Amino acid sequence: MSTQKHYTGLIERYRDRLPVSASTRIISLNEGNTPMIQLQNIPRLIGKDVEIYVKFEGLNPTGSFKDRGMTMAVTKAVEEGSQAIICASTGNTSAAAAAYAARAGIKAFVLIPEGKIAQGKLAQTLMYGAEIIQINGNFDKGMSLVKEIADHAPVTIVNSINPFRLDGQKTAAFEIVDDLGFAPDYHCLPVGNAGNISAYWKGYTEYAVSRVCSTRPVMCGYQAAGAAPFVAGHMIDEPETIATAIRIGHPQSWDFAWAAQKESGGWFDKFTDEQILAAQKMLSQYEGIFCEPASATSLAGALQDIGSGKIPEGSKIVCTLTGNGLKDPDTAISQCAAAHPVTIEASLDAVKRAILDCL
Amino acid sequence: MSTQKHYTGLIERYRDRLPVSASTRIISLNEGNTPMIQLQNIPRLIGKDVEIYVKFEGLNPTGSFKDRGMTMAVTKAVEEGSQAIICASTGNTSAAAAAYAARAGIKAFVLIPEGKIAQGKLAQTLMYGAEIIQINGNFDKGMSLVKEIADHAPVTIVNSINPFRLDGQKTAAFEIVDDLGFAPDYHCLPVGNAGNISAYWKGYTEYAVSRVCSTRPVMCGYQAAGAAPFVAGHMIDEPETIATAIRIGHPQSWDFAWAAQKESGGWFDKFTDEQILAAQKMLSQYEGIFCEPASATSLAGALQDIGSGKIPEGSKIVCTLTGNGLKDPDTAISQCAAAHPVTIEASLDAVKRAILDCL
Repeated sequence: MSTQKHYTGLIERYRDRLPVSASTRIISLNEGNTPMIQLQNIPRLIGKDVEIYVKFEGLNPTGSFKDRGMTMAVTKAVEEGSQAIICASTGNTSAAAAAYAARAGIKAFVLIPEGKIAQGKLAQTLMYGAEIIQINGNFDKGMSLVKEIADHAPVTIVNSINPFRLDGQKTAAFEIVDDLGFAPDYHCLPVGNAGNISAYWKGYTEYAVSRVCSTRPVMCGYQAAGAAPFVAGHMIDEPETIATAIRIGHPQSWDFAWAAQKESGGWFDKFTDEQILAAQKMLSQYEGIFCEPASATSLAGALQDIGSGKIPEGSKIVCTLTGNGLKDPDTAISQCAAAHPVTIEASLDAVKRAILDCL
Repeated sequence: MSTQKHYTGLIERYRDRLPVSASTRIISLNEGNTPMIQLQNIPRLIGKDVEIYVKFEGLNPTGSFKDRGMTMAVTKAVEEGSQAIICASTGNTSAAAAAYAARAGIKAFVLIPEGKIAQGKLAQTLMYGAEIIQINGNFDKGMSLVKEIADHAPVTIVNSINPFRLDGQKTAAFEIVDDLGFAPDYHCLPVGNAGNISAYWKGYTEYAVSRVCSTRPVMCGYQAAGAAPFVAGHMIDEPETIATAIRIGHPQSWDFAWAAQKESGGWFDKFTDEQILAAQKMLSQYEGIFCEPASATSLAGALQDIGSGKIPEGSKIVCTLTGNGLKDPDTAISQCAAAHPVTIEASLDAVKRAILDCL
């Protein structure tokens, strides 16, 4: 093998801050190193003097932030001799588990809620060759089954209750500080299972303790109105939202997420499906960035709180976009139903007419 | 605006090799900087001592290599005062044009062949807010209309006949050399409109002339059997393939691509849809990398030519994966029809049985 000069994934990059040794075989797909894109049009549209960056995690190898945790979890599972991994998933975790298991040459079992995962995520999980166990129950039910099953079968759980997941995910905070040269004032995140907000806080805190950054951001966790246990202050039994990636009522990282909120002076809030889809469309239409519905919850929250002054002008804000819009083409297409194209004759006149009508 | 330390796109990175000035307003979505992933399992499976890297262009902001050319083309269109761009597209170009137009705040018109673009690409183009003109004709017909219309309406063509497109796309070759520290021995590409093979050759040649690398790769251009004008030696009128991104019979970069083949000592070849889909599945299943069907043509070709010895052992090979698998979930799901999941009861016993049956 040649000496590799190039980027080979987040474990290699942040090796000294992750629980791996010199002899650990790293299972990686060159995840991480995702772009920080500064919004150029939306701040002007809302007439506010703020710097908003989106951390576009949809450009990870399987199209979501889950790859960060999965490279760590599968690396450690393989190191410990595991031949199979298992997770419950709304779709993104299953895609990541399936891909990293394929790369490692081990088996992946994924429990998904019937009919409630987006089409792209199903396509991925099938293509990566995972064993899909579709249950007649939601994510929370799948999660409780996964926790039970690990005592009855030789499988390693790779949901975010696996502590290595959060270790991998915390590197997103490292990258943000390394990119900006400082920590943002506010960090806005969608909150479902609450592993990500917990992991970012862990990352910022580790960097602050090591004095890589002098401050930590206020953590703002935004949920879908129909799946908002942190806003309710208690678990929810029948979560419902079009943002399937955060359709979770019993978040596994409940305590960690509350700690992040309290220690950072942050808050939780909730948004309707309509507000979430409007933010998704706004980001596509005015900035050219297409994220999945759940991801846009971070922007919906940021815009509301900037509008009200709760996030003051002059702030530097990072919004995590957790997943790629291509994960869920159906929701996007149905959202644009009014713009659905009609077919015209392939002639110069017809095309010219179509164009001049719009100019 | 803060001083940005972080990666802000390929024009900034390769500014001195691109036709921009200090005052040019750059339209960017932080495209480029895509991962080079070394295949770990497939070389072992085929029992050959080769280094194969995939350049995963599906992790560009709109999910394909088209973003590289589009950042340049839209930057130059805006610099020249254009208020609207137009392209014909099998889907990836339209997604990129729509996104960069959104970012620039100008209008995008895209001509797409009815019913022949993948679902993810349609979702993107709608979400980015392009004006979609769907015609009852294929890509080649759309392309000829676009060339005519530019004389009749105030629109800038951003297909790869726009020379700035190839300038942007050549940066992928720069990145490969910068990452590896040398040029590969062989570079394998899917060939549709033939802009990409032309652009890579331009990039490698510029780097060789500047002595950044001492060699240039042999360029291997692979086509779909039903859309293989370079293999036939003449244009094709009714191209057909499941790999919609290369369903092109009249490639616009015909002369450039032949020059790349001849000057590099390379070749063209063609593969059936079955071979292309098998390569796509192999890459997903054994490496955890999910590309769109057309992209896998590069791997199908590489594997055949490694197998026959035409590409000898000891070679360093780069295969470009032009687009993300999430662009075309339908083809992936139908390819995995046999593995389509059945729903089981959400109980410990049922799940345990499902798992133990597989172990």
